[in-house]
Amino acid sequence: MTEHGDHPIVHVEYPEWVDSIVDWNCAYATDEDRMKLAIAVSRTNVECGTGGPFGAAIFEMNSGRLVSVGMNSVLRYNNCVLHGEIMAFMMANQRVGSFTLNAPNLPPHELHTSCEPCAMCLGATLWSGVQRVVYGAAREDASILSFEEGPVFPESYHYLEERGIEIVRNVLRAEARAVLELYRQKSGKIYNG
Amino acid sequence: MTEHGDHPIVHVEYPEWVDSIVDWNCAYATDEDRMKLAIAVSRTNVECGTGGPFGAAIFEMNSGRLVSVGMNSVLRYNNCVLHGEIMAFMMANQRVGSFTLNAPNLPPHELHTSCEPCAMCLGATLWSGVQRVVYGAAREDASILSFEEGPVFPESYHYLEERGIEIVRNVLRAEARAVLELYRQKSGKIYNG
Repeated sequence: MTEHGDHPIVHVEYPEWVDSIVDWNCAYATDEDRMKLAIAVSRTNVECGTGGPFGAAIFEMNSGRLVSVGMNSVLRYNNCVLHGEIMAFMMANQRVGSFTLNAPNLPPHELHTSCEPCAMCLGATLWSGVQRVVYGAAREDASILSFEEGPVFPESYHYLEERGIEIVRNVLRAEARAVLELYRQKSGKIYNG
Repeated sequence: MTEHGDHPIVHVEYPEWVDSIVDWNCAYATDEDRMKLAIAVSRTNVECGTGGPFGAAIFEMNSGRLVSVGMNSVLRYNNCVLHGEIMAFMMANQRVGSFTLNAPNLPPHELHTSCEPCAMCLGATLWSGVQRVVYGAAREDASILSFEEGPVFPESYHYLEERGIEIVRNVLRAEARAVLELYRQKSGKIYNG
């Protein structure tokens, strides 16, 4: 892929199992309903061996309409940036046809993610235009598996909050953490150790 | 793109102009040679109207062999995460066939970027496996155009340095800043204002 006219191409799709667990037409009413979906994505990703134990989903805040899901795809695509949240943002951008979910013609959107976002994904939430971030398992839960979260500080969250992004922590934390534990039991690869 | 079997797909390629300014077979010997390429990428991206005023390139540190370039592609692909650095990381992963550039069978790699990385891209440098980050224009230069960098603090850089990543600042800063100025003169869109 090094010669003129023969460059690398990045091509990203959902794994085949996505429709077996995602109901695209259901309205996800509560935070628990929405987090359950993010956790189900993380769990299926582990069970099917398609990636790390992390899942995410983006919803219209008020209607609960599902816009996208994202599953960690670092190993599946040999691509270091394809965390669950990044995948969810990219797919949501594609689906709404806008580089921001905070466009004047769009309703407000929110991210649910099965685990506290890493530094990259927390930065990306700003660019995505979501107005609310809800996470399940905490940084400490991921670090038990030696997954690193990068340079995230209390000030990082303050920065987002000052820009109007609401942060909600530890929703269904035990269920989310159980998927991390499952990955550990299966001796899943720690790709960012 | 909402129905079963009809999901969004992310497909990313270089713009057509890439081979007109990138010599894939040249060894880029010095930091200035390498930064010149990153800046040329940023400038051509503006001149050709393919994205924001940001360019990046990844090299093997010792040989100076070019592995990938990246140009901001947020607007071209309606994709909020496609900053120049993210594009360079993804393309480098593809090219070497590894989710990390810090694999035992690979020589050390480094990132050159025409402007100080935002929070997302700085986080991604950790996951990419590059061992050195060299930037041109500074955060303040980008903020004159109202481009935001997100939650990056002095501790963020310390975090990377503690993990063995060398940071080199303001290489060819004036040349890099001139591309930001060109974008402003052309009234380029500020997509993360």
